Amino acid sequence: MSAHYFQTNPEALLALTQRIFSKIGCTEEDSMLAAEVLQSADLRGIDSHGVARLSGYVRLWKANRINAQATPKIIHQTHTTATMDGDGGLGLTNASKAMDIAIDMASKHGSGWVAIQNSNHFGIAAYHAMKALEHDMIGMSLTNASPLVAPTFSKERLLGTNPICYAIPAGEREPVVIDMATSAAANGKLEIAKRKGEEIPTGWLQNKAGANTNNPEDLKGGGSLLTLGSTKEMGSHKGYGLSAFVDIFSGVLSGANYGPWVPPFVSFLPLANDMPGKGIGHFVGAMRVDGFRPVDEFKSNMDQWIDRFKSAETIEGQKEVVIPGEPETALFLKRKKEGIPLIDAVYNDLKSLCAELDVAFTI
Amino acid sequence: MSAHYFQTNPEALLALTQRIFSKIGCTEEDSMLAAEVLQSADLRGIDSHGVARLSGYVRLWKANRINAQATPKIIHQTHTTATMDGDGGLGLTNASKAMDIAIDMASKHGSGWVAIQNSNHFGIAAYHAMKALEHDMIGMSLTNASPLVAPTFSKERLLGTNPICYAIPAGEREPVVIDMATSAAANGKLEIAKRKGEEIPTGWLQNKAGANTNNPEDLKGGGSLLTLGSTKEMGSHKGYGLSAFVDIFSGVLSGANYGPWVPPFVSFLPLANDMPGKGIGHFVGAMRVDGFRPVDEFKSNMDQWIDRFKSAETIEGQKEVVIPGEPETALFLKRKKEGIPLIDAVYNDLKSLCAELDVAFTI
Repeated sequence: MSAHYFQTNPEALLALTQRIFSKIGCTEEDSMLAAEVLQSADLRGIDSHGVARLSGYVRLWKANRINAQATPKIIHQTHTTATMDGDGGLGLTNASKAMDIAIDMASKHGSGWVAIQNSNHFGIAAYHAMKALEHDMIGMSLTNASPLVAPTFSKERLLGTNPICYAIPAGEREPVVIDMATSAAANGKLEIAKRKGEEIPTGWLQNKAGANTNNPEDLKGGGSLLTLGSTKEMGSHKGYGLSAFVDIFSGVLSGANYGPWVPPFVSFLPLANDMPGKGIGHFVGAMRVDGFRPVDEFKSNMDQWIDRFKSAETIEGQKEVVIPGEPETALFLKRKKEGIPLIDAVYNDLKSLCAELDVAFTI
Repeated sequence: MSAHYFQTNPEALLALTQRIFSKIGCTEEDSMLAAEVLQSADLRGIDSHGVARLSGYVRLWKANRINAQATPKIIHQTHTTATMDGDGGLGLTNASKAMDIAIDMASKHGSGWVAIQNSNHFGIAAYHAMKALEHDMIGMSLTNASPLVAPTFSKERLLGTNPICYAIPAGEREPVVIDMATSAAANGKLEIAKRKGEEIPTGWLQNKAGANTNNPEDLKGGGSLLTLGSTKEMGSHKGYGLSAFVDIFSGVLSGANYGPWVPPFVSFLPLANDMPGKGIGHFVGAMRVDGFRPVDEFKSNMDQWIDRFKSAETIEGQKEVVIPGEPETALFLKRKKEGIPLIDAVYNDLKSLCAELDVAFTI
């Protein structure tokens, strides 16, 4: 039996999201921005990072782990580097504001990089990195996250799914947007398998003892997600290295928490003892394309790059080579026009949230 | 039967390497620098990228594909971004000089980034990125490379093993150095299996038709290396995305070649038709740690990060969690003291090369 979907109007869903953020005390500007970040996930088909998380943010606010009235500040700076104290606010807004600062530094000096401490879950990485595109810049965004992933050889959860995102402008073609968790599979994929009562492929998860498992329930039982590469032989130490890079840039460079000390997303899990930093950390940046070569030349070569990969000879049974970001752009266009589908669970969750906060439920 | 090794003195091997670069026309300074880059690979145990490649560089010079008397120039610049035309010279020296420029920009403005076009194979990525460490900076280096890797769903070789390297300083501990090919396995591992007549693990290589193979000879037969993740289910599209990022930063941003047009390392393979850029491309950069927070605080947190991962609980049968760069540092210290072992094939290759160039063979 497949799940039932409610087709919602994007504008109405955006307005509802904004009302909820507003109700918990965010300024009008912050509510709008946070709602936009969640909507970009729903439009791009990253359903696990859209309004499905809204009640999670509210629960963190209720637990006093999110400061809805945060006023982020730059606490350290050079011409092209800065550290932002996110004041315990939403990562959705902190990372977006930090990206504006990075873009401004890049306009003046060629590149700009901001590490963010004292923040929370920042939504999809692509939203922040893609802000660079309209300025003919390359954007980058990283964040650390709740520890769920074990480094190679260990059975301890020391890393988050720590995503890496690069957004790169093209000419006539759509931009190339690489946005990937550094684990073999994101937690959302396990959730889907659990909901369907299905096994998961070998290479995604290990159980409490560190043995590979096909049972998605083993994560809750003390298991850990595996890093990209899955086994040492196939390069799991590379996925671990990438995840370490994200954790260090986001957590250590900013003065946030890192490794096993990163605060969990779910409000019912306790914070770690002796936390070495503040909140969770992000790292964003931008570089002007014309800091390296004329924009037209770059874009024309990007179009050639895309066309060449797109037209590559495929393995029998495969339709075509996919350009990074292409499926998300296709979904964006489709959902912008046809609406955003919400599964029953998310629809009902939103409805209860509205009742709880006394916010009009119209979508 | 295990291979026979000649234990060579690092200083003598460095001097021999320098004499060879000098003989083909490199300046004294360039010869020394190029020799140092190769030696860093041999000391760190990346034997495939050390003097084992020396005859390859000489053959490319003979084929007029390497300009030994190159004078690289900056052709585009902002405060923190630059593009270098490598003048067809050795990537070993071009990337190192570009890194010096990146470090200089970072000293003045917080960060510095240099894309390099019209270059050649740059040796191990770690050499260049690690130059940042002594300045209390984080270093980064990328390069594209001869097309040997297929993007997900394709049977065409459109990407190189395109490495990513980040070098991050620590305090009392050794720096964290992440230096990894974005393919599941580097070509060198296939070479070792071939030499031993062994099969390779599933997940490294596909044959001409795009089917997984355990026979390392299938690469020569038109097969392709697989990206990190190996299969779509296990995340090969992520390895492909990372490799694309490296190719675009190194090739498209610099005005070098990219994708299937990247010139091959071996001189007997022809260059592609209608090459869109110049030579192969690299991308290097540096960021000041104190552009984000005081160096002492950062280093103290890095030590804590390292200690926490190092002491993580291991899976039964595994000794300990390895910190990225740790095995290479251990080999460096050992080989610096005990000497660099060369296998027969490399020893004999060096000997013939010396005879051919009329250079004294004393190691």
